[in-house]
Amino acid sequence: MSYQTERLVIRPATAEDVPAIVAMLADDTLGARRETPHDIAPYLAAFESIAANPDTLLVYAETADGKPAGTLQLMFLQGLGRHGATRAQIESVRIHSGMRGTGLGTELMKWAVETARERGAFLVQLTSDASRTEAHRFYERLGFVHSHAGYKLHL
Amino acid sequence: MSYQTERLVIRPATAEDVPAIVAMLADDTLGARRETPHDIAPYLAAFESIAANPDTLLVYAETADGKPAGTLQLMFLQGLGRHGATRAQIESVRIHSGMRGTGLGTELMKWAVETARERGAFLVQLTSDASRTEAHRFYERLGFVHSHAGYKLHL
Repeated sequence: MSYQTERLVIRPATAEDVPAIVAMLADDTLGARRETPHDIAPYLAAFESIAANPDTLLVYAETADGKPAGTLQLMFLQGLGRHGATRAQIESVRIHSGMRGTGLGTELMKWAVETARERGAFLVQLTSDASRTEAHRFYERLGFVHSHAGYKLHL
Repeated sequence: MSYQTERLVIRPATAEDVPAIVAMLADDTLGARRETPHDIAPYLAAFESIAANPDTLLVYAETADGKPAGTLQLMFLQGLGRHGATRAQIESVRIHSGMRGTGLGTELMKWAVETARERGAFLVQLTSDASRTEAHRFYERLGFVHSHAGYKLHL
């Protein structure tokens, strides 16, 4: 469940990692408007719920010397179609601003895809905001295919 | 949790509904290649898992006289971002071939959106295959915005 190289550790997040994860979620053109890293309590409550759910894995990556490197959330969704197949879904991918362009994001995503495969998912899916054109190229280099339209309805 | 009009009942699916749901999943240009409605056992096993999961609701719609009308799967995904917000996701929408164009699909989707709102989700999301242009217009009429690229990686 965890992965370690000379420069990187990828592992399930603990409550102690939540402030660093929220800081990465906020350090983003879209995330800056949405997050409140100075008020961590609601995030900790959500973390407890995520940690108790065996189908949701909040992932934290740090450098070998303990600096935040990245995060993503990997979910396993049981469906009825395709003989009851499970799909994996990735949400909330962030690479620390100081670590972008170093290949850490590729390692993190490859770990997530491999984890999905080991768990028997037939597919990994994600959506990416239309404005994130660099992210689109990143996912395409990893083999993801832009085959679907992603629809959102805000409530 | 269930909804009834003069012509339609929308409710959580039971094991008895699974054959009718699988028949609807298979009666589709993309689904025809993927489903095996003659071999229902793996679908029933998946149904047990779905029914035991409080974050996943397999929905079945039937006409007032008990004919299959439609199905969808509504999921609630707890995240860390946006102060620990929950998003709702809709998968595997099908309207029975004899019921398309009658407004039943709109009723079913509106029910799902309302259920997501009642449960406190901040967003409803779904992806639709690029080839399903009629479905895209349908979702747009319901207020969904094509703001994201939907990426899939088959394992």
